[in-house]
Amino acid sequence: MDASRATGDDEVLQRLQALGLVLPEPPSPLGAYRAVIEAAGLLHVSMQGPVVAGHPLPRGLLGAELTLEEGRQAARLAVLNALAQVRLHLGGFQRVRQIVRLEGHVACVQSFTQHPQVLDAASELLARLFDTRAGHARSVCGVRNLPGNLPVAVTLTLEVEPSRR
Amino acid sequence: MDASRATGDDEVLQRLQALGLVLPEPPSPLGAYRAVIEAAGLLHVSMQGPVVAGHPLPRGLLGAELTLEEGRQAARLAVLNALAQVRLHLGGFQRVRQIVRLEGHVACVQSFTQHPQVLDAASELLARLFDTRAGHARSVCGVRNLPGNLPVAVTLTLEVEPSRR
Amino acid sequence: MDASRATGDDEVLQRLQALGLVLPEPPSPLGAYRAVIEAAGLLHVSMQGPVVAGHPLPRGLLGAELTLEEGRQAARLAVLNALAQVRLHLGGFQRVRQIVRLEGHVACVQSFTQHPQVLDAASELLARLFDTRAGHARSVCGVRNLPGNLPVAVTLTLEVEPSRR
Repeated sequence: MDASRATGDDEVLQRLQALGLVLPEPPSPLGAYRAVIEAAGLLHVSMQGPVVAGHPLPRGLLGAELTLEEGRQAARLAVLNALAQVRLHLGGFQRVRQIVRLEGHVACVQSFTQHPQVLDAASELLARLFDTRAGHARSVCGVRNLPGNLPVAVTLTLEVEPSRR
Repeated sequence: MDASRATGDDEVLQRLQALGLVLPEPPSPLGAYRAVIEAAGLLHVSMQGPVVAGHPLPRGLLGAELTLEEGRQAARLAVLNALAQVRLHLGGFQRVRQIVRLEGHVACVQSFTQHPQVLDAASELLARLFDTRAGHARSVCGVRNLPGNLPVAVTLTLEVEPSRR
Repeated sequence: MDASRATGDDEVLQRLQALGLVLPEPPSPLGAYRAVIEAAGLLHVSMQGPVVAGHPLPRGLLGAELTLEEGRQAARLAVLNALAQVRLHLGGFQRVRQIVRLEGHVACVQSFTQHPQVLDAASELLARLFDTRAGHARSVCGVRNLPGNLPVAVTLTLEVEPSRR
């Protein structure tokens, strides 16, 4: 393990702190599945919404109940939940080689077209936190609805260094 | 190959039998693609719906033409079709290391919020059949419609042991 | 590297030429992400739409603003954009072992059911270009809308030979 890897976790956590952000308590799965699965060099994180324990959350559709900026804030919270799941699973971010994929789902009205701007709130946060490891291919679509009437959800895939066990 | 792996296929098939379930004849692809692709240690199964040859199937939206329980039954049939594709491709389930990912699409009315309960019918069946190998990260969204007006579809990804060829 | 691999790029480009097709200038990402990420033996291409610089494009929903055939043409253009991203990233198609996955999103009216026919325009093109390497598992759903009111978008995943660096 080289030096840059050895301080990887510190870097991400230090950047979170510098941005005044705290990883939330990762939400429990909503059924008979797991929050994170590691397989074939990749870490698959289950779809995460912007739910944060104890904090009220706007529900509904972008373009109706939520503004673009509220949608962006929801995307930020959703990706922070995904990162909280990663930290719980790996114990930190040292083993993260790069962010591979960010899939976004936006619940919105028919006339909505600004899906990329919503997702960018999550992508920009990943770029600030992971720097050269931020990578990620992206997809996004506008759906009818999401579990529990959430406005935005993200699904994250990461590449990880082989485990040392 | 250790002993637990050698009986892996038997276990899944025995559990199916104990539940009174039979894997359906796997549906043919609906176009110029393949039902299953193996790549980089992962098995990607094409999206499967609840179509079973010779059996009529409710079509339409959850919350309108279908109840929650009918949606759950559709999710069960869809995941059984996915497993039938896996068996056809691998010849059994011995090489399945773990279920990696289950993506669900639910065609539903605007006010529907119970997507996790629908998908849980599939997740719970995977848990009973694959036990410690059931794993799986999950995502689900509510869409406008699916091919042929299907109410539910699932897309399964599995990790497999390296082939012995 | 065996002989069939060494001519792989030529084959795909020759087939494109024989079909009278030219890979478009690959579109820039719409935000803080990358067009292509290589990880764990797989190449993940960000969602691509049918946008081609300088060419007007029908926008809207299949079944309303667009016909099935216009949707099929959109799927063809979207997958050509995805292939243009792959060529830009890899410098050619020699390292492509197989097409692993094609995910389609179709923006359509409620009564639309012909999603497979739309995606088949992309799948059939992949089959003609990649022959025995065309493979691919597929999924498709009908969504409310896509970024910028695009009618169709595709997300491509490929397996690649290990890099020689």
